[in-house]
Amino acid sequence: MQTVTLIPGDGIGPEISAAVVKIFDAAKAPVQWEERNVTAIKGPGGKWMIPADAKESMDRSKIGLKGPLKTPIAAGHPSMNLLLRKTFDLYANVRPCVSIEGYRTPYTDVDLVTIRENTEGEYSGIEHVIVDGVVQSIKLITEDASRRIAEYAFEYARNNQRSSVTAVHKANIMRMSDGLFLRKCREVAENFKDVKFTEMYLDTVCLNMVQDPTQFDVLVMPNLYGDILSDLCAGLIGGLGVTPSGNIGANGVAIFESVHGTAPDIAGLDLANPTALLLSGVMMLRHMGLHQYAAKIQTACFDTIKEKKVLTKDLGGNSKCSEFTTEICRRVQDLD
Amino acid sequence: MQTVTLIPGDGIGPEISAAVVKIFDAAKAPVQWEERNVTAIKGPGGKWMIPADAKESMDRSKIGLKGPLKTPIAAGHPSMNLLLRKTFDLYANVRPCVSIEGYRTPYTDVDLVTIRENTEGEYSGIEHVIVDGVVQSIKLITEDASRRIAEYAFEYARNNQRSSVTAVHKANIMRMSDGLFLRKCREVAENFKDVKFTEMYLDTVCLNMVQDPTQFDVLVMPNLYGDILSDLCAGLIGGLGVTPSGNIGANGVAIFESVHGTAPDIAGLDLANPTALLLSGVMMLRHMGLHQYAAKIQTACFDTIKEKKVLTKDLGGNSKCSEFTTEICRRVQDLD
Ligand SMILES: CC(C)[C@H](C(=O)O)[C@@H](O)C(=O)O
Ligand SMILES: CC(C)[C@H](C(=O)O)[C@@H](O)C(=O)O
Repeated sequence: MQTVTLIPGDGIGPEISAAVVKIFDAAKAPVQWEERNVTAIKGPGGKWMIPADAKESMDRSKIGLKGPLKTPIAAGHPSMNLLLRKTFDLYANVRPCVSIEGYRTPYTDVDLVTIRENTEGEYSGIEHVIVDGVVQSIKLITEDASRRIAEYAFEYARNNQRSSVTAVHKANIMRMSDGLFLRKCREVAENFKDVKFTEMYLDTVCLNMVQDPTQFDVLVMPNLYGDILSDLCAGLIGGLGVTPSGNIGANGVAIFESVHGTAPDIAGLDLANPTALLLSGVMMLRHMGLHQYAAKIQTACFDTIKEKKVLTKDLGGNSKCSEFTTEICRRVQDLD
Repeated sequence: MQTVTLIPGDGIGPEISAAVVKIFDAAKAPVQWEERNVTAIKGPGGKWMIPADAKESMDRSKIGLKGPLKTPIAAGHPSMNLLLRKTFDLYANVRPCVSIEGYRTPYTDVDLVTIRENTEGEYSGIEHVIVDGVVQSIKLITEDASRRIAEYAFEYARNNQRSSVTAVHKANIMRMSDGLFLRKCREVAENFKDVKFTEMYLDTVCLNMVQDPTQFDVLVMPNLYGDILSDLCAGLIGGLGVTPSGNIGANGVAIFESVHGTAPDIAGLDLANPTALLLSGVMMLRHMGLHQYAAKIQTACFDTIKEKKVLTKDLGGNSKCSEFTTEICRRVQDLD
């Protein structure tokens, strides 16, 4: 049994988390859940931080699975997502986007992964008013963070039988910052001769992506570009309701999460779709080396969607979250 | 007769420009072309500038139509596109993206316009090395440029019977810079009560765009976001080969251009597709108040594509540029 910190989150978070726990149980996944609330509190000196028991659990387990968190409304309250990335130095945001058979979108055969630098760039938080009416925001790119994310991307490609890595940039405009990022990607590429390396402008990637996403494999990029491209790619395969996500740090630390919202309008009504959180859980199992359980759950989930008999509303069906969950559990058990 | 500065450009530029001139002639458009080369030269003090006769022509005519320019390779040579935007203070980049009947893409009924702030933001060109391995780029947002582009967008919506303007931003991350941009959009919206105003995060726009582009109308945004979104949207309707573009400045100054490349591999072979430049010319005619000619040429072009008999290779046909051009001319004359 490995311990995993479970962060159910807000809105539909608790019900989709319960669904995932049920399915993991049905699969007999050797996971011990430790439930925690991470909503930031004001620590000594007025600094926002995640509660001590949540921090302590994550420090021990190293692995988290997280539902959606509501955007805080208190003045000065930080974005919980940003705070978590920062607290645990989760430097790589990884989103596999794979077309789901039976779920119709304008595209088929999408099979790519966006890898986003998660700690710097446009998210530095450094901004100034220069004079009245003139504001600057600072995009910070460092050699270390660029090398680290490039290495992560190439290692990911190698370990996941992927053949190419594309660095996404605007070094024609931001010659120094994106230039540095690109240079590090090129340097790292030298050490991964088995993986093809290409470079492409962000605007060109966007254009090519909507014309033919099958040409892409692993994409690596600075923070903001990743924010954009990961959502764009999620859209290609059906949206945030079916797209898993992982935030990876050093020494095995990682938080996997669904990136959709809290959907307060349907919270508690047994109508939510747990797929994104479940597939994030599947990513997590792979990260933990539990490949067999990952495969079982993924197959059961995709088969359920493909068969189209028991689907939640957003997937085009009439079933409740609990019915969808039960169907996946049944299939997981049949796979034994 | 109104004078227009014609900048044929490089690669396929001259042949697609010739095609446009032919079609304008067939339509009897009251336009007098003044051909100029804009490739930058080194002026006094080593500053790169566009040649005096080109500058003088544009200053006089106020209106330019421009083919693709090759990316300069001389060290320190500026991007020609950026230099032109700067020289004539072309602060608004406008790209209507409308689905073309008969040209198959994964989407139908796209009908939107991206309006990009063209002078500042991430394109400030200000970058520094802070210490070894740490670089910053400055994104500059000003009240004046934000108000100006917001006003342009709302006026465009009003004058073109469009019902909504969406401001695209990441003010949740860049609170001060995108915050300022957004505030100006909100303020300007107050003066255009007949146009619906909405705001949306850039990542959400990208996701929604690939899921259902028909929900969008006019979109206004800072420079880099416009670079990305305009290419993404071009991809939805068939790419840069069929997407027109206009760069608008103050006092009626404007340069209309095809934004595709110079395609050196097919240059001079009579294989190029003049559609993007032609539709940019149509935008130009509208800008000049020559609506009747604009309509005629647009109809002839779209009818030719819809009929699928005489198409260039990239459009799925076997015809030469000159044949495609002749077919459009024939239809233009038939419309008289
Ligand atoms: C919620 C927000 C801070 C976040 C971001 O901009 O990174 C979100 O869009 C994401 O992709 O996780
Ligand atoms: C050529 C390049 C400088 C330019 C940009 O990044 O703005 C291009 O992508 C565009 O959109 O016109």
